[in-house]
Amino acid sequence: MTHSGQKRDERYRAIMETAARLICERGYEGTSMQEIAAACRMTKAGLYHHVQNKEQLLFDIMSYGMDAFEGQVLEKVRDIPDPIERLRECMRLNIELVTCGFSKEVIIILHEHATLTGEARAFIDGRKKRYVRFLEDSFSEAVRVGRARPVQPTVAAFAFLGMVLWIYKWFQPDGRLSVQQIAEGMVDLLFNGVVAPAGTLPVPAPGEAPVLSLVPPTVVGGES
Amino acid sequence: MTHSGQKRDERYRAIMETAARLICERGYEGTSMQEIAAACRMTKAGLYHHVQNKEQLLFDIMSYGMDAFEGQVLEKVRDIPDPIERLRECMRLNIELVTCGFSKEVIIILHEHATLTGEARAFIDGRKKRYVRFLEDSFSEAVRVGRARPVQPTVAAFAFLGMVLWIYKWFQPDGRLSVQQIAEGMVDLLFNGVVAPAGTLPVPAPGEAPVLSLVPPTVVGGES
Repeated sequence: MTHSGQKRDERYRAIMETAARLICERGYEGTSMQEIAAACRMTKAGLYHHVQNKEQLLFDIMSYGMDAFEGQVLEKVRDIPDPIERLRECMRLNIELVTCGFSKEVIIILHEHATLTGEARAFIDGRKKRYVRFLEDSFSEAVRVGRARPVQPTVAAFAFLGMVLWIYKWFQPDGRLSVQQIAEGMVDLLFNGVVAPAGTLPVPAPGEAPVLSLVPPTVVGGES
Repeated sequence: MTHSGQKRDERYRAIMETAARLICERGYEGTSMQEIAAACRMTKAGLYHHVQNKEQLLFDIMSYGMDAFEGQVLEKVRDIPDPIERLRECMRLNIELVTCGFSKEVIIILHEHATLTGEARAFIDGRKKRYVRFLEDSFSEAVRVGRARPVQPTVAAFAFLGMVLWIYKWFQPDGRLSVQQIAEGMVDLLFNGVVAPAGTLPVPAPGEAPVLSLVPPTVVGGES
């Protein structure tokens, strides 16, 4: 990348940060390009030099948030061999992301999920669905290798996501609970009851069906 | 109530139902009173005969949803003596409410939480906070009487709420998971690890501090 390309990127990132703050406060419909330009100390024409239109800006903010999520959460846990440790660490890191630096972008991804249309929406939805699959696959693996008692992987994945992603609705950075208390509390609440007590579940041989699965294969999967 | 008062109420309920459907689809900012009137097969003047302004209509829809929630969930479980049974039944009924009849109103309460202003917002927020307190109190009681291992009541309350209220983001009425599978799965996931194994936690005498509480009193409570 050229030096001027980098500078343009930094400038654009600053615009996205400012726009994300405004959209978070006022909603997408309630924020005009004029207001975004003013908050960036630019003219509206100057803003349109950097961005095609408001929907493109929203898509870019969401992509920027998804990049942060994938870099700071998914890529860091993907290769943890034990599925329960992978899920626990994933929950901790995702809670950090939601409560710390990227909360604006995360809120917009979550709150404006129905605002994008067409291909842009399908693209962001695809990235979100990959995360759901990753969670479902990790829960399935945990059951299969005897690390978890039989839980329905889709329900478990969405329980995980609900616990983590709802935090943006109630968390106050200056509240009485620290991020660490919340993260450890949530990890404990979900996984204490999921992990199979040591020695209670036999580990099936590779390729063999799990011995104690109560989940018939026909109900695996779920949201259509 | 007079017969004509009842008829007016029914008419108003039908207006709220229609408005709720539109606001759900398009968002509050994206829905005009003109569109609501048209969907109700009324003139705009006719609509203003029933409702003062759009913010009043939003407040009335949220109040209607909160009435439904309190009548169909909270009042039905409030008097269950065992705190764990109370919480389990509360989760089941709340999941039914979110997935069935009142999903539009629930979505609006959740999604447009920052749209109301002033007293109207404070009033709805107060009703929501009473629910959070009810959950925190029930988890505290479960720990105190030895029915639950020590969990932080605020984290547990928001874990419960996240699991239940996130469902509106992903649930598909024609999906592969039934409401009952989701409800039983969620109840199992949260409470399997919370309930104290029989006989492991001594029940303290009334007024006595719980013997095994790991939660120092100073961290109880949380969101500010």
